Amino acid sequence: MKVKLKDIANEANISISAVSLVLNDKPCRISKERKELIKQIAKDRNYTPNINARSLVTNQTKTFGLIIPDIENFFFSRLTKSIEIYCRKFGYTLIIVNSNDEFKEDLNLIDLLLSRGIDGLFITISNSSYSHEEEVSSKLKLLTIPYIMVDRVFDRLSCNQVYFDNVKGAYLATKHLINQGHTKISCIINPINSKNTISRFEGYRKAMEYYGLKINEEYIIQGDYRIQSGYDAGTVVINNNTTAVFVSNDMMTLGLLKRLREENINIPENFSIVSYDNLLNEFMLDVEITSIDQKVSKLGITACDLMLNLIQNKELKPEKICLNPELIIKKSVKKIHSPSI
Amino acid sequence: MKVKLKDIANEANISISAVSLVLNDKPCRISKERKELIKQIAKDRNYTPNINARSLVTNQTKTFGLIIPDIENFFFSRLTKSIEIYCRKFGYTLIIVNSNDEFKEDLNLIDLLLSRGIDGLFITISNSSYSHEEEVSSKLKLLTIPYIMVDRVFDRLSCNQVYFDNVKGAYLATKHLINQGHTKISCIINPINSKNTISRFEGYRKAMEYYGLKINEEYIIQGDYRIQSGYDAGTVVINNNTTAVFVSNDMMTLGLLKRLREENINIPENFSIVSYDNLLNEFMLDVEITSIDQKVSKLGITACDLMLNLIQNKELKPEKICLNPELIIKKSVKKIHSPSI
Repeated sequence: MKVKLKDIANEANISISAVSLVLNDKPCRISKERKELIKQIAKDRNYTPNINARSLVTNQTKTFGLIIPDIENFFFSRLTKSIEIYCRKFGYTLIIVNSNDEFKEDLNLIDLLLSRGIDGLFITISNSSYSHEEEVSSKLKLLTIPYIMVDRVFDRLSCNQVYFDNVKGAYLATKHLINQGHTKISCIINPINSKNTISRFEGYRKAMEYYGLKINEEYIIQGDYRIQSGYDAGTVVINNNTTAVFVSNDMMTLGLLKRLREENINIPENFSIVSYDNLLNEFMLDVEITSIDQKVSKLGITACDLMLNLIQNKELKPEKICLNPELIIKKSVKKIHSPSI
Repeated sequence: MKVKLKDIANEANISISAVSLVLNDKPCRISKERKELIKQIAKDRNYTPNINARSLVTNQTKTFGLIIPDIENFFFSRLTKSIEIYCRKFGYTLIIVNSNDEFKEDLNLIDLLLSRGIDGLFITISNSSYSHEEEVSSKLKLLTIPYIMVDRVFDRLSCNQVYFDNVKGAYLATKHLINQGHTKISCIINPINSKNTISRFEGYRKAMEYYGLKINEEYIIQGDYRIQSGYDAGTVVINNNTTAVFVSNDMMTLGLLKRLREENINIPENFSIVSYDNLLNEFMLDVEITSIDQKVSKLGITACDLMLNLIQNKELKPEKICLNPELIIKKSVKKIHSPSI
């Protein structure tokens, strides 16, 4: 059984309110010895304060919540860690929950975190929440604590948001391939109706259009941001008569590389790749991948700074902070002669 | 402001206890229309029940807590996900907190999770907690909810534990190198005073001794389980006159491979490696690594099954479940002629 204030009061032979005052370090007329006795009993009996009761008084829990779609994805595990470490510096603990990219879990986990007491919420929504934008937006709008949409945001919702410009990132990636002479360029993209995915496809389309290049239907290959889908996409890439591919995340690039290796297709000699996230190069062994870098720690720190501001001043107007991604050039793209550009 | 039962009662013009009965789906003499009205108001106003208050009645929160040392480490992010998904199947939500491998955080986070209400605790302690075994053990012993030490355990503590046999794993790894003819074998190991680390070194030592091989001082290279330390260890390995290395985790192997590649040392032609964890092969591009497989999902599922049993029957005696690791042979070890074996 959980130890209660009453139990400590009984053991110390003192009133419950006196115990409460002592354990909360409030001024009271109790001798130093008695105070120490009470604290010792609380420690021995492993007394933990009821945080909800305590937060009624202090109105803060010194805790933030984070809802993340897939803790196993490098990008999100790194984002989680950067938020966690930065919050800790300011005395906040981060409670993490994983939605498994399921829209219903976003809704459940918001309730769960609220019911456990948090001072602020970071949320990276599930991709499937984009198909239930109104429902999820309504839920968020009702929140009475500060919240920030991180990485995955709703354009139409007026709330605090920190994210990267995905149109720009994909445009830079595709433009780089075109500048190196490629004209037949595949795109591995998640067909899910999410802002980041749509934006990345949009950036690819814009670059191709700007340079007057045609996008054949078979250039567009579906993946789900996981390794296996990149592997499967590899089979299509091998047969669709393109010389290069823009892959919209690193996990899929891992799978793609494995598939190409099986066919002895070397990068960049036989095929060129630009990826997204730039998390692979510290793992890479046989090829360094040109990629769009989204500085994960910058995303995490910007979100934390905004949250700490919101906690100080709840009247601040919602801010939408759009961060710039950057093209990091490595050796996965071959410069080819192309008379058409 | 957080919406309270009282606010809903005012709006529905009904008593607080009636609202409580309706929202908790308890039997009561309230018309269906009225019930729906109350539920609609609660939904519109984003009412979330105070979980601590509710748990006083039901005595359960349908939530487990998980304390993990480093969410960015593949092994732990995968373990987290396997526990999360399995718990979810049984209607439990998992609250995850990251200790950043700091002993003090283990103690703080136990309190934090308890104060937020959980039905059971999974804990993978920080490596630094092994230097404060008594303090951490005392803390755990006082817990009044079921808890399970996962992966990293205290031998002397009588409590529920699920972990792998690390002596056996390291023995199998080293024996494999010896069987292929290697006699000068380095070992990259974390010098921290933790059970798993000590056990892995013990397994290496046992195998070398059993086969009458000498361990020179320079064979033992320190790392901290992170990529950079494996990279640094690479410089030592290149110069210590060994032909093979047993690396005690995959993250360090990643760094080591990068360093060896810089020196054009090919695996297995010029150097042999056996690693630990077997998580790399799905990422690997130019070499598949022989490794000790600790089935992460088995660890997670075994821990969950045990927890669900404990929840059903709190009188169960503590169980220590030791799982067997397995050697997965790939292509990172060269068979060499060696007259000494």
